[in-house]
Amino acid sequence: MIDVRPVFYAVGALLCILSVFMFVPMLADLAHGHADASSFLISACVTAFFGVALILAFHVDDLKVDRRQGFLLTTLAWLVLSGFGALPFRFSAMEMNYPAAYFETMSGLTTTGSSAIADLSVAPPGILLWRGLLNALGGAGIIVLALVMLPFLSVGGMQLFRTESSDRSEKLFPRIDQIAGATIGVYSGLIFLCAFIYAALGMEPFDAVVHAMATIATGGFGNHADSFGSYPPSILWAGTFFMACGGMPLALFALILHRGPRALLSDTQVWAFLMFLASATLVMAAWLVLVGKAPLFWSLTHAAFNVVSIVTTTGFASDDYMQWGSFAVMMFLFLTAVGGCTGSTTGGPKIFRYQVLAMLLRRHRNETVMPHAVNVRRYGGRPVGDDVVRAVLVLFALFGATVICLALGLAATGLDIETSFSGALTAVSNVGPGIGERIGPVGSFAQLSDQALWMLSFGMLVGRLEFTTVFILFSRRFWRT
Amino acid sequence: MIDVRPVFYAVGALLCILSVFMFVPMLADLAHGHADASSFLISACVTAFFGVALILAFHVDDLKVDRRQGFLLTTLAWLVLSGFGALPFRFSAMEMNYPAAYFETMSGLTTTGSSAIADLSVAPPGILLWRGLLNALGGAGIIVLALVMLPFLSVGGMQLFRTESSDRSEKLFPRIDQIAGATIGVYSGLIFLCAFIYAALGMEPFDAVVHAMATIATGGFGNHADSFGSYPPSILWAGTFFMACGGMPLALFALILHRGPRALLSDTQVWAFLMFLASATLVMAAWLVLVGKAPLFWSLTHAAFNVVSIVTTTGFASDDYMQWGSFAVMMFLFLTAVGGCTGSTTGGPKIFRYQVLAMLLRRHRNETVMPHAVNVRRYGGRPVGDDVVRAVLVLFALFGATVICLALGLAATGLDIETSFSGALTAVSNVGPGIGERIGPVGSFAQLSDQALWMLSFGMLVGRLEFTTVFILFSRRFWRT
Repeated sequence: MIDVRPVFYAVGALLCILSVFMFVPMLADLAHGHADASSFLISACVTAFFGVALILAFHVDDLKVDRRQGFLLTTLAWLVLSGFGALPFRFSAMEMNYPAAYFETMSGLTTTGSSAIADLSVAPPGILLWRGLLNALGGAGIIVLALVMLPFLSVGGMQLFRTESSDRSEKLFPRIDQIAGATIGVYSGLIFLCAFIYAALGMEPFDAVVHAMATIATGGFGNHADSFGSYPPSILWAGTFFMACGGMPLALFALILHRGPRALLSDTQVWAFLMFLASATLVMAAWLVLVGKAPLFWSLTHAAFNVVSIVTTTGFASDDYMQWGSFAVMMFLFLTAVGGCTGSTTGGPKIFRYQVLAMLLRRHRNETVMPHAVNVRRYGGRPVGDDVVRAVLVLFALFGATVICLALGLAATGLDIETSFSGALTAVSNVGPGIGERIGPVGSFAQLSDQALWMLSFGMLVGRLEFTTVFILFSRRFWRT
Repeated sequence: MIDVRPVFYAVGALLCILSVFMFVPMLADLAHGHADASSFLISACVTAFFGVALILAFHVDDLKVDRRQGFLLTTLAWLVLSGFGALPFRFSAMEMNYPAAYFETMSGLTTTGSSAIADLSVAPPGILLWRGLLNALGGAGIIVLALVMLPFLSVGGMQLFRTESSDRSEKLFPRIDQIAGATIGVYSGLIFLCAFIYAALGMEPFDAVVHAMATIATGGFGNHADSFGSYPPSILWAGTFFMACGGMPLALFALILHRGPRALLSDTQVWAFLMFLASATLVMAAWLVLVGKAPLFWSLTHAAFNVVSIVTTTGFASDDYMQWGSFAVMMFLFLTAVGGCTGSTTGGPKIFRYQVLAMLLRRHRNETVMPHAVNVRRYGGRPVGDDVVRAVLVLFALFGATVICLALGLAATGLDIETSFSGALTAVSNVGPGIGERIGPVGSFAQLSDQALWMLSFGMLVGRLEFTTVFILFSRRFWRT
């Protein structure tokens, strides 16, 4: 049997942290004299109450988490925090029903960015700030997850990114704290820098802060119904730059301070990521120019912004790209299944797994031509064992299977094929917008049924935690042994 | 450098065989007094001329094919035979343009069954018979391919199905001839039996013969615009039964004669295949009953027929299932990517590869719960090596990549998202119909542009030959070493 005490204790602590952050939007509403301030106060009290109760009930002196507790803690953290983070949406003047509020919160904490709010223009400032904060907090959680938990749990080939000390131990260890701390530092620094640049380029300060959080967290919660549609090219390029930064391994930015920018570009994953962004942007821009949709500069600007937004799984849009023609829409659909670098806040299968796949294909080609040749595979200097290859392929298989099941489930609620399929894909990849009129770049998830919202919330959770983390909890062996 | 002489010699011999078969529809047209008879005569002469020319120019005393020649021969055989098999469509009174004629022939020889003929009701009997023959000949070719070539070439994990002697040799060998011979015998026997049953149940004898060829070859070329839409339930159930037979490893039927029906059901692949068909049928029928579309018997009959048709990659339809609701359409879309058993004429990734995938997932679950446990994997009694697992996963990766590229290409020609995506998928899986109004179960590919037809023809070829066989020819190493 699993000892659940440290798990519940940790969840309680996380709830207390969450409740503290609820005072920030409360202050924003107070400053604007909006009545919603009280709804944040109530939510904070309820959340803190349950948090403290858990801490008291499951107190442990020394918080240590083993593998199985790690799986349970990770899944419970996102599930429970979404449950309480949804309270302000429920209690606010907007009166969202609970499934929509839960969807909105899960979307925020998984840095997906799909919104169930039909009309953002009536949302009070506190709610908008809370959405940005959910993105930022979720992003921070994911950084810790990607640095500490997933490599330790060997999920999806993440053992490739284990730091040395974690290789030898079955327990979490102190040194990783420092790495995580530095990364969170970089993350916060990037948010401040991004907000400053946005404001300097003419964005309203409040929008600059919320959008900066959503940008660096690759979340995509914006304050306007048309997302970045009304901003000038300078802001779009700044957004493109910062979304790309958010898609890179944040720990590497700390290295830049020591060793200069070469530290970043010598990373095989970053290099592939940037090359991919550049190629996809050029193809998209070429398409827009060739079909006569727009002149070169407009095409480059909007191709770059939207391609980078989808690949980094941010989900901002600068234009209704459903009007860019079939090829462009198809490209955005497939780009939804890419993702950024590991060690960032991006969702999706991520670049390094595609690199492992490409490695496998090259090896297969060589073996097919010369069956007896010996092939050694390395990734960023480290040998890639069959365990990593298998784990990566398991991740792709679970990704595909989850999208298929979710799409079938959504279709069963009566949604059309495009909405069901792209909705499932965008949720599991934590991107944000789907394709089609309803949930496309200018749409929202507000019209969807409660069942559809619950399914999508589950899809976001499963995708965010890279499948195994959640699915393993459904295995009898997990609980029995 | 590759010695291409035996390759061209073999292609020449295949062209001669093809030309002989062109006399069959000629006789049918003569019997009906249709002027198209002459177009078959001309086609046969042209084909025979080139066949004989190749044989004379590249004569070899002892036809032996090594690995690389095997890849080249397989790809060239389908490419060139489609080129000449298209002539009757081009020369007939229907005056199809060459891209459409080539598409139709490639669709026949790959047992896909997508048709570029807008109105089948004006097609002369010779053309209808030729389409059936292309299905039957293509199916026979695929049996030889699956038994002889692919295991020998280790394509897509097919080394699992190597017969013993092929394990040790780098050359093709005599014993496999006997297995292939017996399988072709079973194949022909099933076609006769199916035609007999169809006719006994009231189908026109001519239709019975053509439909039997298209059924057992899991091809799907029918004689009517509404496919099986106007046939009674008895014929639909017979079709369901024979399509399922066509989806099983045909060599196993020979064993039934010796050891009774248990020989078939003790095969792990057949068992999984039948269980999958039964489950998918029940889900589909339950959906139809639950949404009130139709009563139970109608639902079961049509669910079984269409599910089995799509999973076995036949592509017949008994109803316009685009009207069955989003969930059903989505299911048909995903069923397009399944396929039957290896050793049959079905396309798609096939059941055994999904079994290897499931094996990988189970192993991953066990390793995640107990990292240090030892897991041995077996398939049908044989241990499954990492080489098989990798080859299977490479096949899935190439399947996905091909569908994505093809869908993007089709979208670039201006086709909508549904048509592009499902068209790409149905071509690569060699199924036949896509989804949507245009290429759905009651549509045809006649309205598509020449570029789209060429792309789809390439997709059918690549899918049929399981990717590696074709793609390896694009590798410089293949030609250099």
